[in-house]
Amino acid sequence: MAEPRVAIIYGSPSDANAMGKAGATLNQFGIEYEEVSISAHRAPRTLVEWISGLAPRGIQVVIAGAGLSAALPGVVAAHTTLPVIGVPIKGGAVDGLDSLLSIAQMPPGVPVACVGLNNATNAAVLAVQMLSVGDAGLRTKLEEFKESFEQAAASGLADSAAARS
Amino acid sequence: MAEPRVAIIYGSPSDANAMGKAGATLNQFGIEYEEVSISAHRAPRTLVEWISGLAPRGIQVVIAGAGLSAALPGVVAAHTTLPVIGVPIKGGAVDGLDSLLSIAQMPPGVPVACVGLNNATNAAVLAVQMLSVGDAGLRTKLEEFKESFEQAAASGLADSAAARS
Amino acid sequence: MAEPRVAIIYGSPSDANAMGKAGATLNQFGIEYEEVSISAHRAPRTLVEWISGLAPRGIQVVIAGAGLSAALPGVVAAHTTLPVIGVPIKGGAVDGLDSLLSIAQMPPGVPVACVGLNNATNAAVLAVQMLSVGDAGLRTKLEEFKESFEQAAASGLADSAAARS
Amino acid sequence: MAEPRVAIIYGSPSDANAMGKAGATLNQFGIEYEEVSISAHRAPRTLVEWISGLAPRGIQVVIAGAGLSAALPGVVAAHTTLPVIGVPIKGGAVDGLDSLLSIAQMPPGVPVACVGLNNATNAAVLAVQMLSVGDAGLRTKLEEFKESFEQAAASGLADSAAARS
Amino acid sequence: MAEPRVAIIYGSPSDANAMGKAGATLNQFGIEYEEVSISAHRAPRTLVEWISGLAPRGIQVVIAGAGLSAALPGVVAAHTTLPVIGVPIKGGAVDGLDSLLSIAQMPPGVPVACVGLNNATNAAVLAVQMLSVGDAGLRTKLEEFKESFEQAAASGLADSAAARS
Amino acid sequence: MAEPRVAIIYGSPSDANAMGKAGATLNQFGIEYEEVSISAHRAPRTLVEWISGLAPRGIQVVIAGAGLSAALPGVVAAHTTLPVIGVPIKGGAVDGLDSLLSIAQMPPGVPVACVGLNNATNAAVLAVQMLSVGDAGLRTKLEEFKESFEQAAASGLADSAAARS
Amino acid sequence: MAEPRVAIIYGSPSDANAMGKAGATLNQFGIEYEEVSISAHRAPRTLVEWISGLAPRGIQVVIAGAGLSAALPGVVAAHTTLPVIGVPIKGGAVDGLDSLLSIAQMPPGVPVACVGLNNATNAAVLAVQMLSVGDAGLRTKLEEFKESFEQAAASGLADSAAARS
Amino acid sequence: MAEPRVAIIYGSPSDANAMGKAGATLNQFGIEYEEVSISAHRAPRTLVEWISGLAPRGIQVVIAGAGLSAALPGVVAAHTTLPVIGVPIKGGAVDGLDSLLSIAQMPPGVPVACVGLNNATNAAVLAVQMLSVGDAGLRTKLEEFKESFEQAAASGLADSAAARS
Repeated sequence: MAEPRVAIIYGSPSDANAMGKAGATLNQFGIEYEEVSISAHRAPRTLVEWISGLAPRGIQVVIAGAGLSAALPGVVAAHTTLPVIGVPIKGGAVDGLDSLLSIAQMPPGVPVACVGLNNATNAAVLAVQMLSVGDAGLRTKLEEFKESFEQAAASGLADSAAARS
Repeated sequence: MAEPRVAIIYGSPSDANAMGKAGATLNQFGIEYEEVSISAHRAPRTLVEWISGLAPRGIQVVIAGAGLSAALPGVVAAHTTLPVIGVPIKGGAVDGLDSLLSIAQMPPGVPVACVGLNNATNAAVLAVQMLSVGDAGLRTKLEEFKESFEQAAASGLADSAAARS
Repeated sequence: MAEPRVAIIYGSPSDANAMGKAGATLNQFGIEYEEVSISAHRAPRTLVEWISGLAPRGIQVVIAGAGLSAALPGVVAAHTTLPVIGVPIKGGAVDGLDSLLSIAQMPPGVPVACVGLNNATNAAVLAVQMLSVGDAGLRTKLEEFKESFEQAAASGLADSAAARS
Repeated sequence: MAEPRVAIIYGSPSDANAMGKAGATLNQFGIEYEEVSISAHRAPRTLVEWISGLAPRGIQVVIAGAGLSAALPGVVAAHTTLPVIGVPIKGGAVDGLDSLLSIAQMPPGVPVACVGLNNATNAAVLAVQMLSVGDAGLRTKLEEFKESFEQAAASGLADSAAARS
Repeated sequence: MAEPRVAIIYGSPSDANAMGKAGATLNQFGIEYEEVSISAHRAPRTLVEWISGLAPRGIQVVIAGAGLSAALPGVVAAHTTLPVIGVPIKGGAVDGLDSLLSIAQMPPGVPVACVGLNNATNAAVLAVQMLSVGDAGLRTKLEEFKESFEQAAASGLADSAAARS
Repeated sequence: MAEPRVAIIYGSPSDANAMGKAGATLNQFGIEYEEVSISAHRAPRTLVEWISGLAPRGIQVVIAGAGLSAALPGVVAAHTTLPVIGVPIKGGAVDGLDSLLSIAQMPPGVPVACVGLNNATNAAVLAVQMLSVGDAGLRTKLEEFKESFEQAAASGLADSAAARS
Repeated sequence: MAEPRVAIIYGSPSDANAMGKAGATLNQFGIEYEEVSISAHRAPRTLVEWISGLAPRGIQVVIAGAGLSAALPGVVAAHTTLPVIGVPIKGGAVDGLDSLLSIAQMPPGVPVACVGLNNATNAAVLAVQMLSVGDAGLRTKLEEFKESFEQAAASGLADSAAARS
Repeated sequence: MAEPRVAIIYGSPSDANAMGKAGATLNQFGIEYEEVSISAHRAPRTLVEWISGLAPRGIQVVIAGAGLSAALPGVVAAHTTLPVIGVPIKGGAVDGLDSLLSIAQMPPGVPVACVGLNNATNAAVLAVQMLSVGDAGLRTKLEEFKESFEQAAASGLADSAAARS
């Protein structure tokens, strides 16, 4: 079996549901991944140890989901040079806006790539786009994936035009 | 000279100005402190090492100031059982509201005591209140500090009544 | 029986549910507490009288929960030099953000230690951290409490690694 | 000289500027007033004593300005049955929105009449409207005040029509 | 039967529920009132005609509730010199915050007395406070109303102290 | 000289600057307009009279700018069936967001066409688009206006490509 | 059958429900329309092709609904000189406020006429107002539509007056 | 000279200043780039043509900056399968928060990697991280870049410890 190229992590087991589409979407592109739950604030030593093993075991991109003060993606980014994609998870004082800001507003030199609230699908597609930078086969898959949206829209439009005439 | 009982830390040297009243207020109560600047996201290993030395060298309370995604107070709280006071610093997407939410909205079990935006004075008074839990001398100083506000108000009121009559 | 060292207060009996974890968490650390409901705006004289008895009967930390304009923690802080921990309670115009800001944004010299929305657990842990400033036994309990999070995370990680291999 | 019928209070001497139009507007209507600065959080005993003297010395309406956590208008309302008009003062985490919410969102039974940010003029006009409930002379002054706006607008409109033709 | 002294108006029949406590509270103080629903934006001529009859038929205070762009209280205030109390009603883009700001942020010279979201009770108590400016009997009722809160709190406190001992 | 087809109105003379580009842009398309300042809250009778004359004297579109509680566009829309374009003007509690929400959130049946904050240019272009519905000459001007943006962009791109090669 | 004069478009089939009142309201005025769903981000080529056919086949006004980052109305406006009405749809990070801002805040020269959240009724009424610019019959219908609101309000008022007397 | 691997685009020449650090940072890592300004709303055809040339001429990552309704990054992402990094630029109704939300909240399948407000440095570092997925030399440069932050912090800490002793 192929080794995982993407690691998915979130701060609490209760985030697993919101993050579920990340793994499902990676599967759709045939990308292996690993998935864990570690809290940045409750288990910081376990987290740092886990991060230190990522690059050595071949992980190329990290997807990190978190809610509330949402420190997890930033802490991962602080400890690795791999690209880190942050997924803000809804909930909290201002319904996830706090998470989104915590994740996006990193200091210069330590970026996190923030996607939309609960948008684990987009985190996975972005991860595939990153992996495709040097992988023509993946890029072809991405183009087919994108083209399928156009075709669905075009045929829907044709149907509704037919229905009107 | 007495050993420091309070540590003041902030994420960037540019926060020193906003945090300046913390030290000044501790001085007013005769409390020794140390003060450093370490970024949670840019120098995470240096930070964790610094935190690990706090309790051993006698620090009893930590004051941590941060802006933007404002992870510093939470990271400190994750690595110590000392009480951590967080000072959100103005700036960023929503003029510091993001910092305030990042600092206050910690997961259960890992609190940060959040004070008002840029309110380093209150961080220091709160630190003194914490130190006074088992220190009758400090409590007396706090009562005098508080009483001085009442007396200033009462005499201001008397002056303005006199001016009117 | 030991005397209460912590007082828990909230503005309305309807806040009792949101505040329930404060007492439960203090029990977990073996800390005695008292718990009352008095509105800062509806019963101000009763409140001030209650506050004036706190220090004399041995209370060392106050936890005050409030929603909406959320004046209670600030009024308590105005009348005592004991450290006051404020718990903003969800609801109101902007789903609790107003409470959180009312509680955190105190004038210089009169701090309230604000925790996250409805996060009564963290208010209690913070109270224990304050009490532990001069109490080595409590600090040991806090370290065990914290260590239990790391161990749960580490063993969860080991389980999921075992499951994968 | 007539006795003051309105009391103007604010939390900090630095609010005097923002509140200046309250007194100026009351003067315009020939209403006597007194004006003081007492912080609800820093001098609570002085404040309560001041409030207790209001009704006995003939004050009929209170105007209270405050910024940040903005407890002052609510504390005044808690200690009197006189109508209290609150003026939120700009500044703070969200540029005064926090003050406005603190002032408006009072618990049932203890209202504060909130006006716009820094709008001390409207606080005074509202006070005059309250005093005019049983005072036909004042109502006539209010009608003339209001009518002057219509006449200014109508004559401005006539001028610009003349200029165009 | 006594003539109505207070008029209650709201923009839509669907606001009747949120505004119900206004009338109930006025009844509690023995104040007669009238209650209608007219939209400021959908029936502006009917509204202006209604406003013009208020003072002539003895109305002394207006309570106006509105949601969304919440123009009603301001339009009433534009057409009368009676004091107008605005009740922002929850709903809309930002859960009522827009209504609250629309109602509070009036131009100088045309105040609306804004109370909390959906807080029709406070609108009524404020109306009673306004009517009590020249009415000693009403003031006594208000003092009893207020005192009942203190007594309920004090006896609750005594009960819980008894329960503990 | 052609009769005005567009009326520009704003609540306060201080809005003239923010609204200046509306007239300038209409001039660019050769559209005549009239421009006045009347406050919806301070001069409501003058305003209603002005609105009643709009359709009779040939006005086809109204542009209304307002800040703060921003009732003007809605009041105009309430009194006419002409399309009304609202321009929220910066300032106020939340830097114009309140104006924008007041203007956009109208009740069903009484629309206002809201454009961006201070974006008087877009109000005018939108007015021209409305007038062009039955006016082929205007549509051609709009197409040239739009095409000029493409050509400027394309030639800028060509220049920078040339500079690189 | 008459040709459609209005096109209704939205970004996702799930928006059909929120947009349903647009078509229903146009029907009420006897205006023909077409209705499609195309995502600006997922099917951009299909969208641009659809836009290019609008003016040639006689469409005079476009109503575009969208949620989240809500690019659709702006993309339509970028590719046509027809007036475009944008309907922000609730949901997302800040309950639709993000959509509303995305739709309203267009760059100078490319306006979108933004209506309230989910207010498809007002989008349709605004479209009718635009079509009525050169169509006296439509204007008469709009006046009857508006007058019906006044009459409903006036008769409701008469009923409630009768009930009181 | 090496061919550009990164394209930097922004919506208006006035964004060039805010975006300046993107190019400077790419230079620091020895990455070639091209830089253009095209508005998504004002020059949509020029933009689509430019996007269609990106992959053919060897661009591997796009950095797109935009303010206000901030459609540019999303439009680029709609037309390419290359990873797109969005930089929200300050300004607008809510000081850039609208841009940030527009950029992050993309529909499933079409991600944009959002970084902090005006944080063009992080956009560039993220681009380098993406390029390093299959490029060991770049990863080494990233590790040195990251390590330099730790060393600066550690030596700063040592200095301040020395100063204290």
